[in-house]
Amino acid sequence: MKHKNGEIWEFENVNSTTGGVEDAHSDGGVILGLDGGTTSTICICMRVLPLSSSSNLPDPLPILARAVAGCSNHNSVGEAAARDTLEQVMAETLVKAGAKRSAVRAVCLGVSGVNHPTDQERVLNWLSAARKIVSKNIFWHQQLLNSCNNSLRDIFPSHVKLYVHNDAVAALASGTYGKLHGCVLIAGTGCIAYGFTEDGQEARAAGAGPVLGDWGSGYGISAQALTAVIRANDGRGPQTMLTNSILQSLGLSSPDELIGWTYADPSWARIAALVPLVVSCAEAGDQIANRILDEAVQELALDVKAVVKRLGLSGPDGNGSFPVVMVGGVLEANKKWDIGKEVTTCIQKTYPKASPIRPKVEPAVGAALLAWNSLMKETSKLS
Amino acid sequence: MKHKNGEIWEFENVNSTTGGVEDAHSDGGVILGLDGGTTSTICICMRVLPLSSSSNLPDPLPILARAVAGCSNHNSVGEAAARDTLEQVMAETLVKAGAKRSAVRAVCLGVSGVNHPTDQERVLNWLSAARKIVSKNIFWHQQLLNSCNNSLRDIFPSHVKLYVHNDAVAALASGTYGKLHGCVLIAGTGCIAYGFTEDGQEARAAGAGPVLGDWGSGYGISAQALTAVIRANDGRGPQTMLTNSILQSLGLSSPDELIGWTYADPSWARIAALVPLVVSCAEAGDQIANRILDEAVQELALDVKAVVKRLGLSGPDGNGSFPVVMVGGVLEANKKWDIGKEVTTCIQKTYPKASPIRPKVEPAVGAALLAWNSLMKETSKLS
Repeated sequence: MKHKNGEIWEFENVNSTTGGVEDAHSDGGVILGLDGGTTSTICICMRVLPLSSSSNLPDPLPILARAVAGCSNHNSVGEAAARDTLEQVMAETLVKAGAKRSAVRAVCLGVSGVNHPTDQERVLNWLSAARKIVSKNIFWHQQLLNSCNNSLRDIFPSHVKLYVHNDAVAALASGTYGKLHGCVLIAGTGCIAYGFTEDGQEARAAGAGPVLGDWGSGYGISAQALTAVIRANDGRGPQTMLTNSILQSLGLSSPDELIGWTYADPSWARIAALVPLVVSCAEAGDQIANRILDEAVQELALDVKAVVKRLGLSGPDGNGSFPVVMVGGVLEANKKWDIGKEVTTCIQKTYPKASPIRPKVEPAVGAALLAWNSLMKETSKLS
Repeated sequence: MKHKNGEIWEFENVNSTTGGVEDAHSDGGVILGLDGGTTSTICICMRVLPLSSSSNLPDPLPILARAVAGCSNHNSVGEAAARDTLEQVMAETLVKAGAKRSAVRAVCLGVSGVNHPTDQERVLNWLSAARKIVSKNIFWHQQLLNSCNNSLRDIFPSHVKLYVHNDAVAALASGTYGKLHGCVLIAGTGCIAYGFTEDGQEARAAGAGPVLGDWGSGYGISAQALTAVIRANDGRGPQTMLTNSILQSLGLSSPDELIGWTYADPSWARIAALVPLVVSCAEAGDQIANRILDEAVQELALDVKAVVKRLGLSGPDGNGSFPVVMVGGVLEANKKWDIGKEVTTCIQKTYPKASPIRPKVEPAVGAALLAWNSLMKETSKLS
C-alpha cells in the first residue's frame, strides 16, 4: 500500500464504521511497535494491556494489525526514504487497525544502525521533515503548530511516548516480553550480540559487517562455503559436496562461474541465502560444511560471551541466570544440524545458567511490549 | 593526455622532424606492450630487438616511450570506456615515441579479467567500434576497408601481430623476459597465481576476490587487521597495537568509527592501503599483526603450490627447477618483515628448486617482450 506523501493521514478525516479504536481515552488506546531492518520494516498495532497484565501477559497478545514496508535503514536508502517508509507503514497499520493517531499512547521504533544517543536523535529528526508533509492535512495542522519542537511530535500529539532503539533491542524484548535484561543474539544475513543489565548498562559485539569479521552471520557462513568451492577447484583445498550443491542451486556449470556470480550483485542477503545448502551438506556428512558450521557456532557463542563478560550478566560469582534470546534464520530450529542449539551448548560451557529463549513473537511485537513496559514504569512512578 | 575520439590518430598526418621511428621497414619497427589493470593502464613502446638478442637481451632495453591511462577493466568501467582507454594510451605512446602505426610490428595486451579464449575474442572485439571512429581519419580509411574482419585490424594494418593475455601473463613475462614458463604470484590489492608449462598448458589459483577467500591479498591482510581491532574492542580478541596504529592513520577516535569508515567507500584498494601499518606493527613485535602476516604467507605460498602441482612444473621427480615471478606491493622487499621472502621460503619447503624472481621491468615491458618472443618464434619457423 503506497501513499502519496500529502495523503498519508487523510484516512483520519473519514468517519469509520468498522468499530476500530477511535480514541485513546475511550478504551486505553493502542501502541505501535516497529522493527526497521535492512530488508523490510514491520509495524504492529497492539491494544494497550491493563496494568494487571505485567506479571501475566494475555495469550494471544491483542495485536490489532500488522503492516510491512521496505527498508528503513538510512545507510541503505537515505534519510528521506527511510523517514517516508516509517511514516507510511505506521499510517497503514493504523488504517488496518481502524485507529487514528489520537488513539496512540506510545510508539517504539527498533531501527538498525541506532547505536548511540546521537543516532536516536537522528531517527527523531528523520521525521521532522514530515512536518511540512503532514501540515497539508488541515486536521493535524493546529496540533502540529502547538506541539513542542521534538520532531516525532510533528506526527504524534505531545502526550504520545516515543522510544527509539537499535533493532536488536526490539529483538531482545521479543524474547523477554518487553523487559530489557539479558543478551540477544541475532544471526540472519548479518549477526550481532546485544545485552542489557537490569540497571540499564548495555554492550554489543559483532554487528560490524562481513569485512570486519562477522563470520557467524549467514553471509559469513555462505562466503566460507563459496570459498571452499573455489579452493577445491584450484587444488588449494579438499573436494566438498558444496561444489555440486551450490552450482546446481545457482544453475552454474563450473566453479569458475562463481566469481562472476558473486560480484554481479553486491547484496549480502543474496549470498546469505545459501546457508540452507551448507546445512544440508553438513547433515549429509560433508566435512568441509561441518567445519564451516562448527566455526560459525564458535563465533556466535563468542559474540554472546563477550557481551555477558563485559556486562557481568552472570553475576558476581559467574553462576547467575540470565536470558539469551536467539533470533534470525541462522538460529532457527528447523534442521537436524541445529546451529542455535549448538551455540547454546557452547555458551553454557562457560555460563551454565544462561537461559536460551527462542521468541514466540516477532521483534515488532517486542518493540510494542518494550513501549508498554516503559509506559507501565512511568505510570507506576507517577502513582 | 586526453584525445577527442576522432582525433586520436591525427598526429600521423603531421610530418615529424623529431627523428622517430617512421616506418617498420626502414629500421625493424616497434612493439607495443600494454598492462591493463583495474587501477591504471600502462603502455610502452619498445624498438624491435635483433634476432641475435634472444639469448642475451640488451640492458637497458630500448624502450622508446611510456604512457599511463586509467582503468581498462571492462568489468569496472564498461566495454566502451575500456576500449577507448586502450586506443588512446596506444596512440599517446606512439606520439611520444615519434612513431606511426605503420612502424608497429606487434601489440601484446595483458588485460585483467581475460581468462578464456572467449575473453581474448572479446578484447579484440572491444576495438571493433574503433573502426567507425578511426574511419574519420582519411589516411587510414582505405587500409581499414581493405583489412580483414578481425577488429584489432581496424586500428592496425594486417601484418601487425596481435596477442591478448591475462595481465598476470604479462607479469610472468616481466620476470622471464618474455618466456612463458613458470609461475607468477601477484599480490597487490588482490592476489593471483598463474602458471605456464613450456608446452603451453596453463593454470591459475586464487584471483577470485576477497569474498571468495583471497586472504593473502593486500585487501585480505588489511581486512584481517581491521577485524582484529573490532574484536579487541568487543572483548572477542586480544588487544593489539593495530588499534592505535590504524585509528591514528585514519584520523578516527574509536574502533566503533571503523565500521562507518569501512563501508563508506567500497574500494578494495582503500582497504588494502593499510598493509604497511600491519607490517610496521608486526616488526614492532605485535603478535596479532605477526599472525596475520604469517597466515597471508601460507595462503600466498599455497596459491603457487597449487598451480605448480597441477602443471607438474617441478618435473616428474618433483625436484625440477622453475621460475616463480613475484609481483605486487605486498611482495616488495622494502621491509624487515619481508612477505615475499617468507613466501619463497615456504614454497621451497615443498619445491626446493623453485627459483624466485623479482622482476626488474614492469609488466607492460613483459608484454612487449612476450610479443617479441612470439614474433621471433614465428620468424624462426618461417626460416
